[in-house]
Amino acid sequence: MDFSIIMTDLSVYIEHLTKEARQASFAMSIASSEAKSFALNAIAARLDASRDQLKSANAKDLERSSDAGLEQALIDRLKLDDIAIDQMVEGIAQVDRLADPIGEITDLSFRPSGIQVGRMRVPLGTIGIIYESRPNVTADAAALCIKSGNSCILRGGSEAIESNREISKAITGALKETDLPNTAVQLVDTVDREAVGQLLKADEDIDIIIPRGGKGLIERITRESSIPVIKHLDGVCHVYIDESAEIKMAIEIALNSKASKYAVCNAAETLLVDSCMASDVLPMLGQEYKKIGVEIRGCKQVAELISDITLAIDEDWHEEYLGPVIAIKVVDGLAEAIEHINAYGSHHTDTIVTNNYENSRQFLKAVDSATVMVNASTQFADGFEFGLGAEIGISTDKLHARGPVGLEGLTTQKYVVFGHGEVRHR
Amino acid sequence: MDFSIIMTDLSVYIEHLTKEARQASFAMSIASSEAKSFALNAIAARLDASRDQLKSANAKDLERSSDAGLEQALIDRLKLDDIAIDQMVEGIAQVDRLADPIGEITDLSFRPSGIQVGRMRVPLGTIGIIYESRPNVTADAAALCIKSGNSCILRGGSEAIESNREISKAITGALKETDLPNTAVQLVDTVDREAVGQLLKADEDIDIIIPRGGKGLIERITRESSIPVIKHLDGVCHVYIDESAEIKMAIEIALNSKASKYAVCNAAETLLVDSCMASDVLPMLGQEYKKIGVEIRGCKQVAELISDITLAIDEDWHEEYLGPVIAIKVVDGLAEAIEHINAYGSHHTDTIVTNNYENSRQFLKAVDSATVMVNASTQFADGFEFGLGAEIGISTDKLHARGPVGLEGLTTQKYVVFGHGEVRHR
Repeated sequence: MDFSIIMTDLSVYIEHLTKEARQASFAMSIASSEAKSFALNAIAARLDASRDQLKSANAKDLERSSDAGLEQALIDRLKLDDIAIDQMVEGIAQVDRLADPIGEITDLSFRPSGIQVGRMRVPLGTIGIIYESRPNVTADAAALCIKSGNSCILRGGSEAIESNREISKAITGALKETDLPNTAVQLVDTVDREAVGQLLKADEDIDIIIPRGGKGLIERITRESSIPVIKHLDGVCHVYIDESAEIKMAIEIALNSKASKYAVCNAAETLLVDSCMASDVLPMLGQEYKKIGVEIRGCKQVAELISDITLAIDEDWHEEYLGPVIAIKVVDGLAEAIEHINAYGSHHTDTIVTNNYENSRQFLKAVDSATVMVNASTQFADGFEFGLGAEIGISTDKLHARGPVGLEGLTTQKYVVFGHGEVRHR
Repeated sequence: MDFSIIMTDLSVYIEHLTKEARQASFAMSIASSEAKSFALNAIAARLDASRDQLKSANAKDLERSSDAGLEQALIDRLKLDDIAIDQMVEGIAQVDRLADPIGEITDLSFRPSGIQVGRMRVPLGTIGIIYESRPNVTADAAALCIKSGNSCILRGGSEAIESNREISKAITGALKETDLPNTAVQLVDTVDREAVGQLLKADEDIDIIIPRGGKGLIERITRESSIPVIKHLDGVCHVYIDESAEIKMAIEIALNSKASKYAVCNAAETLLVDSCMASDVLPMLGQEYKKIGVEIRGCKQVAELISDITLAIDEDWHEEYLGPVIAIKVVDGLAEAIEHINAYGSHHTDTIVTNNYENSRQFLKAVDSATVMVNASTQFADGFEFGLGAEIGISTDKLHARGPVGLEGLTTQKYVVFGHGEVRHR
């Protein structure tokens, strides 16, 4: 069915999309690496050749959003100019260059019965991706799903509908040139918000939901979904400066974790300092933060060492500022730091600065977060920095995928058994 | 709080248990291998020393169940005699001998930025186990959760409440001799069915629910739980005899997959035979099945080759008989077999008997099940046969754990980063 057909009944439309996606997932799961690579190249080529159409569709989105009074930051993210199109095309080429994760067999070993048992990496099946604003996600997500042998349903924000339609047209057109099903990637082509609710109930045909966007979107999806969701809500990340930290290193990591970028989930929001280090690092660090315009909210002991700060209230220890503000607390050693992080943090990314061997091991073991670091900036918590070659999101959940999620997060494993006629004797 | 206190308010009681479990999970997550081993040995010793109390508590359960007219198979499973106690004690010793999965770091590699990134295996946190009948699950599950550094809440069937109470008393008593929190293992000490409903809503404090029991129990739990559930509902397993199968091997695997044990989830329920093999294997196999009392429900082509069989109806292809009945269908080659399995199966365990290299690879790749085999009996799908050293259940879900679930299924991984002062430059 052509997706331009106007559907009068939303639930019929969504059911149609999800059934098509499930059907396409079977063909995708057995697609060869060559076929997937051919498809990715065809998509990149078509997007490259559709620049005029992409830019004129995007112009409509920009105009409508501007008329509707959308804030400038969102409009900037919506913009699809030649640079953004270059990035989209290069992004697909990057995904194409990654190793195909599918079919990898690991841990293959013979058992006393004679059978040989191992695990094979296979696609999840059908992936629903629900996102806001940036139209490039349409191409990025499609590329990752194709590479990992999944089919996907993409639901972008209504503000980007014209751009997403045009990108999706290029993808579908390219898939039609290949042996893969052209329903491997489908855009939900309606701005009706209820479409999201319908998708989240399609647990027969969608295996996992990945939301990308603001906290409000993610909370709504988690609440409504009967399908497992890969998500993180908050990035309340911590830097803990331990008793034996090297002062220069501690200051650099505390600054960089906060300020390398502010509006990212791996930015530090709270700094904890061992009481015996407080007078050594806080006065200097206070000056440095002030120099770059970072506001400090500290406990009483911090206020004694750094002048003109705001006293922190309990909410500050929970807060994800996503901006030039940092909460600072003096703690009585490692145990209190760990307890604070596990109680107030968001289980995203936390780092200790230390030169104490036992403390480094204790911190790694006891901090219950997706990423735990020693002597490194929290801002490294990222799929590319970790060598995953891609990132579809960061998970603070414990099941399936935890931390930066790359291609592997879009796959699962099944057991495979190689026998030569073995039967079980009981 | 002593668990014998009578709680007037169920929800207060369950909240108390779950909060205690969460608190205990922190201490469990950093417990040393030695401490966990000491606890397991203490539990085994105490169970061994409590034989009289265990048997007299069990006698009360047996009497009550017998009076209530519980069917004999369930009463047999409920029975705790010296042999069952020996098995329970030996089971704990076996778990103790397994390698500690916690703290293992894998895939540690240096990145261009200078940081070294790897993954550390860590406990899930708090595990809820809901089960029926067999009281030995109380000890087995406790041992696996302790070994994997988790705390757990155990909810056994009301028919086994006296036995479970006595086992739990031994466990708690043993834990009190150790440095581990004695709330690491807690029994829900009420027969109120609503306790299960309350547990399933404690998503703040329980990380995963593992049900063990009949389909009705598992369906109820899956429906009601706001916590992720590791489960399988059905084991509709298939044997497919491919064109090039060796006849003797095909017959042995078809017989063993059905009849090594009947009432197990990895027993084959449907046999598919390539049409070109049908006349070679079916008459002989029909005789063999009849010899051991297995009823055959077959398609028309099967009825032409085996006399006096029941014609299969569509429901037979979905059916988990768990008894001496097998559905047999002649198919037109590998593609139809795969399609049938993916459409009618339960994604549990399926095997192909073949000597065709390409077909074996295609079957492994395209059958969407937790375990896919070549030339081996489906009845090998089992944590012990696969070398996991333990089995807490079998999962037919795709996320987190798939197939037989051992200790690893009770754990997750977090990223760990070792730096020496690296900061991120953007």
